[in-house]
Amino acid sequence: MKIKRSERLVDMTDYLLNRPHALIPLTFFAQRYDSAKSSISEDLTILKRTFQARGIGLVETVPGAAGGAKYIPYILKEAADHFMDDVIAILNNSHRLLPGGYVYMSDILGDPEKLRYLGRMIATQYLNQRVDAVLTVATRGIPIAQAASAYLNVPLVIARHDTNITEGSTVSVNYVSGSSKKIKRMTISKRSLDEGANVLIVDDFIHGGGTINGLTSLIEEFDCNLVGSTFFAEGASKSGTQTVGNYTSLVKMENEANGEMRITKGNYDEKIFGSK
Amino acid sequence: MKIKRSERLVDMTDYLLNRPHALIPLTFFAQRYDSAKSSISEDLTILKRTFQARGIGLVETVPGAAGGAKYIPYILKEAADHFMDDVIAILNNSHRLLPGGYVYMSDILGDPEKLRYLGRMIATQYLNQRVDAVLTVATRGIPIAQAASAYLNVPLVIARHDTNITEGSTVSVNYVSGSSKKIKRMTISKRSLDEGANVLIVDDFIHGGGTINGLTSLIEEFDCNLVGSTFFAEGASKSGTQTVGNYTSLVKMENEANGEMRITKGNYDEKIFGSK
Repeated sequence: MKIKRSERLVDMTDYLLNRPHALIPLTFFAQRYDSAKSSISEDLTILKRTFQARGIGLVETVPGAAGGAKYIPYILKEAADHFMDDVIAILNNSHRLLPGGYVYMSDILGDPEKLRYLGRMIATQYLNQRVDAVLTVATRGIPIAQAASAYLNVPLVIARHDTNITEGSTVSVNYVSGSSKKIKRMTISKRSLDEGANVLIVDDFIHGGGTINGLTSLIEEFDCNLVGSTFFAEGASKSGTQTVGNYTSLVKMENEANGEMRITKGNYDEKIFGSK
Repeated sequence: MKIKRSERLVDMTDYLLNRPHALIPLTFFAQRYDSAKSSISEDLTILKRTFQARGIGLVETVPGAAGGAKYIPYILKEAADHFMDDVIAILNNSHRLLPGGYVYMSDILGDPEKLRYLGRMIATQYLNQRVDAVLTVATRGIPIAQAASAYLNVPLVIARHDTNITEGSTVSVNYVSGSSKKIKRMTISKRSLDEGANVLIVDDFIHGGGTINGLTSLIEEFDCNLVGSTFFAEGASKSGTQTVGNYTSLVKMENEANGEMRITKGNYDEKIFGSK
């Protein structure tokens, strides 16, 4: 039975949104809706235009016999700024201040709607780069890393501080914690990364840079390539300098003289959207 | 500027898919597209029909001045079975067998496409029940719990075995591990659950039932209600019996006499789809 355009548009939108970065052949849609390829092409033109007009993402169409359509999620700077202004206002609420100059943010990083925004923001920076996996370290970085992995549609790999029998053979590295200067250890399963994979690091917080050094060592152990690293929050290091230079942060946390924290925008404007 | 129906259908689909269980007022869409409410109602009828025909979910329309539309994700039994057959075939590959009778499954629980299916399956069981939060315990249960929380559109709350200064005041409980019979401890932030909330437990694995007892104690400490509990995998307990009765499992793992593992369907057919 031939399917009407209106139904095709709704179903194709759902289908593509659920498969970011995957090339869906035109013939697949033609069969799915028992429709001519030319009709499918017209549908895709409507999707492409709407996705662009509404800031949903890019619909890339690949011409030819092996051609098809690919949905590449992104977020526009305006929408990202609007969202981040809200998040920063929430974080600056004094009720969130914890002893020791910390800020409670687990609820933000556990809120599915916010995670969708955060995932899209992170994915936007790597729109045109090949990413094969997202790497994070347990525990608090997992939700935001998973959100990024969902929009990039690549596996999420979790390093752990403990070892677990359910991971099989593992690879471990030692690293020096940037804040406490203690030697720590992190481990991932040998099966979790392929040699030569392009790996994006995503974590909740960067302080002294120790964790990122550990994760970078793991990436080297697997002969993988580090594509970049994105952190939800960047804290001012006690020594005043970060030990790693090139990363993206969504918010910045600074201790004020009166013991309060001040949360401001991270460097994402420049890193994700290329503006200063 | 008036927006054409084709563009409205694409954008409304995206908008609703990104906000499961949220009631979107008709007036919101009417303003967004500068269109009459009657046109929006017709659009929603098309969405509703397509979502149902394609097994995407329910579009509930609430009539009246305060009315609107709500997308409730579900998965059809046929699609779930098809997906789970694939997962079970992958898990039964002998290369996954680890020493001690464990099966490597971290890649399945880190695959965004599979997590979308798993999340939809878990959400389907609680289609008509109020769920306010999804609770899991670090580390391996987080991705599947987050997937469920995304489709239920409720906060993800993570209990931890260690305590962390960034959680503020915490509540801890002791519990007896079902498999090792050791006394363990788990902790969550005092801020993470509201009194009276309806909580769904989601974790990767249930063996002796110790973890679920710990999570249940936490729920009691907060005067919350346990809505249900879903586990990716159910293992045969060493004592032969589970210490908790009522849970949903997607796969079942049994040790064979030859040391191999046999992975079969869990009880989800009955629990999620009400079939025997």
